[in-house]
Amino acid sequence: MSVKANLCYAQSGGVTAVINESAAAAIAAATAEPKIGRVFAAKNGVLGVLHEELVQTWRENKTAMKMLAKTPGGAFGSCRVKLPEVSKNPNIYSRLMAVFRAHNIRYFLYNGGNDSADTALKLSAAGKTHGWDLVCVGIPKTIDNDLSETDSCPGFGSAAKYIAVSAAETALDLMSMARTSTKVFVLEVMGRNAGWLAAAAGLAAGEDGGNIMILPPETPFRRARFTAALRRRVQKFGCAVVVVSEGLRDGRGEFLSAAQTKDAFSHRQLGGVAPRIAEIAQAAGYKCHWAVADYMQRAARHAASQTDAEHTKAAGAAAVKLALAGQNGMAPVIRRLADEPYRWKTAPARLKNIANRERTLPAGFYDSEHYRITSACRRYLAPLVRGEAYPEYGKNGLPRYARLKNILAPKKLPPWRD
Amino acid sequence: MSVKANLCYAQSGGVTAVINESAAAAIAAATAEPKIGRVFAAKNGVLGVLHEELVQTWRENKTAMKMLAKTPGGAFGSCRVKLPEVSKNPNIYSRLMAVFRAHNIRYFLYNGGNDSADTALKLSAAGKTHGWDLVCVGIPKTIDNDLSETDSCPGFGSAAKYIAVSAAETALDLMSMARTSTKVFVLEVMGRNAGWLAAAAGLAAGEDGGNIMILPPETPFRRARFTAALRRRVQKFGCAVVVVSEGLRDGRGEFLSAAQTKDAFSHRQLGGVAPRIAEIAQAAGYKCHWAVADYMQRAARHAASQTDAEHTKAAGAAAVKLALAGQNGMAPVIRRLADEPYRWKTAPARLKNIANRERTLPAGFYDSEHYRITSACRRYLAPLVRGEAYPEYGKNGLPRYARLKNILAPKKLPPWRD
Repeated sequence: MSVKANLCYAQSGGVTAVINESAAAAIAAATAEPKIGRVFAAKNGVLGVLHEELVQTWRENKTAMKMLAKTPGGAFGSCRVKLPEVSKNPNIYSRLMAVFRAHNIRYFLYNGGNDSADTALKLSAAGKTHGWDLVCVGIPKTIDNDLSETDSCPGFGSAAKYIAVSAAETALDLMSMARTSTKVFVLEVMGRNAGWLAAAAGLAAGEDGGNIMILPPETPFRRARFTAALRRRVQKFGCAVVVVSEGLRDGRGEFLSAAQTKDAFSHRQLGGVAPRIAEIAQAAGYKCHWAVADYMQRAARHAASQTDAEHTKAAGAAAVKLALAGQNGMAPVIRRLADEPYRWKTAPARLKNIANRERTLPAGFYDSEHYRITSACRRYLAPLVRGEAYPEYGKNGLPRYARLKNILAPKKLPPWRD
Repeated sequence: MSVKANLCYAQSGGVTAVINESAAAAIAAATAEPKIGRVFAAKNGVLGVLHEELVQTWRENKTAMKMLAKTPGGAFGSCRVKLPEVSKNPNIYSRLMAVFRAHNIRYFLYNGGNDSADTALKLSAAGKTHGWDLVCVGIPKTIDNDLSETDSCPGFGSAAKYIAVSAAETALDLMSMARTSTKVFVLEVMGRNAGWLAAAAGLAAGEDGGNIMILPPETPFRRARFTAALRRRVQKFGCAVVVVSEGLRDGRGEFLSAAQTKDAFSHRQLGGVAPRIAEIAQAAGYKCHWAVADYMQRAARHAASQTDAEHTKAAGAAAVKLALAGQNGMAPVIRRLADEPYRWKTAPARLKNIANRERTLPAGFYDSEHYRITSACRRYLAPLVRGEAYPEYGKNGLPRYARLKNILAPKKLPPWRD
């Protein structure tokens, strides 16, 4: 019987088109590592630990694990769960550590964004207070690109590429129709507080911004100014594409559009700013079309960026190394060494510097007067969308995405009751 | 000086991801044809003829013309214009024929859907009544797949592939999130009266429909029945993807969502049914996300279908042959010879059997009880989305789409005034 310590990988928060690159790389690296015993994956993030739902990754077949890397979404399930402070609810941490102990899990890799880094940080502390020697390492991931410490976020480049490609393509469509029909096309993209995804659409235009207008959430929306600028674009180009972040706010800081529901982190669920902007353009006398990319932008593995896929894979593998080196409370991040030709490496960063922080679009990256990105922003974004990382397609014309068996390890503990 | 008759190609109606395959093929075939003199392309469809805006295609460089085939949107501009009856406004037809005569254009190829076939049909008649020997040939095109006479419509397969891929990808994303967050994802696709595009999403699920529910416009929406079926899906699969046509109607025939504007053909501009379905799902207690694909679905050349690209190219080349054979008032359509392995050919059809007609989803293609497509529908759709016809990508990570110079021929007539 093996006495080697086991490792558990889990996914948390909104998933991405490439998060399973990290999963596949981490699982492969851990499986190949002589010092590590079994490699588990928790179902639905930390909930899988709580409920002792641990996938036996070694029971998946090799083809599925190979396809996994190119499959969008979180193959083991994700979750949006906020853990209480370690001092406030010792029971839940006792339970989590009991599950780790029952399965001899000494390494825990948590793949998520800034909310998930908060969870990973708490777990990294709970090991000490609850008497189980756990090394908890984060793996950064978010399409929002809003994590601090890292130059870019694994998952962002692919969503950015999808948005830039979609903006380029819909602009061509719109230009064909503008003479007698639609003059304004509005595309809503994700981004509650950070305009990185909206900014990516700027790559579809030249330095002057062309007929693409960007509305990031960092810059308050002023209707009269926007309408005037829109008129100038339509007069000059015959039409305009407006790319707007879901989190666009007015001068009082109110969301232009907000649904009523809130998630576990008390964030308001957004969506629906595109029809609002279309109304405004329509009031200016222009026929409009509008689209909302929503999950499509973060699931579009078919249009993934090769740079992003490489970042994501490297972060997964680097997390295993950090774990083995005992780097509790750390995460591998992406460090840029040069813009052009683009060079980068992974480097360790502290989870406490990532957790609950948000990095928005810097002022120098957005030219609010002309609703366009700056050259600095373009230089930053360009390498991130570079290269095509196509999935394989089947004879049916659809990508061959993996479906794992997700066979759970036999439970050793009684069910969790809060 | 050449006395050979010239040819003019033009694009009309909503454009597609592959319409320029027809353009490139028609222009190449006509250019190679010894009996044809110059090859023009009218700017913005029939409007370009009216205003004597005729692009000199021979002045484009070869690289651009080669890239043209893989560029979405209408490279020469399109239009939504309805011509009056030939007998009602002889002036406009006199003008159109005068422009053709001034440039010695004896062949006119009109690339569009059922409204455009109406225009082409009128032009094919006007030649005779206005003393100019014109051969007018249609080239079918529409993502809606609603043209009669043809087995499938050039442009549909690519939009269908984009929707099927997006449904497959977003379903994977949703499944990852469903445990603690979003349980229902609603995707709105185009289709005013025909559910072909919504049906395409069924390819992302197995024969039983899985967790994908289809709401085509042909079947009246019944809220209580839908809510009950939605609950069953969420109970069984943990989540559900609902793919809804923009033209979904209630039992009284009213659109669930309709904007106030109408186009030149008095069709109401639709859009915005996804948030209505999301409201209904939310009222059933499920957290929802929703997306509206709009122009993205018909511009997504990056995800084009190889079968569709081949159909579209063949239709463009076949139109030139029909024109040379003097087949006035005809159009090449796609005839299916076998489902599997898929075999097809082009064949001539009469524009009068295409103009202003709509082919909706047959009753035998949709199982309204289970909100899924039938095996017959799957057999029909499968070959149409097969094969990947990727554009080339540049070093900047974006597709290399052609921008033509569109140099107009010198005008020979006074400006048109209605």
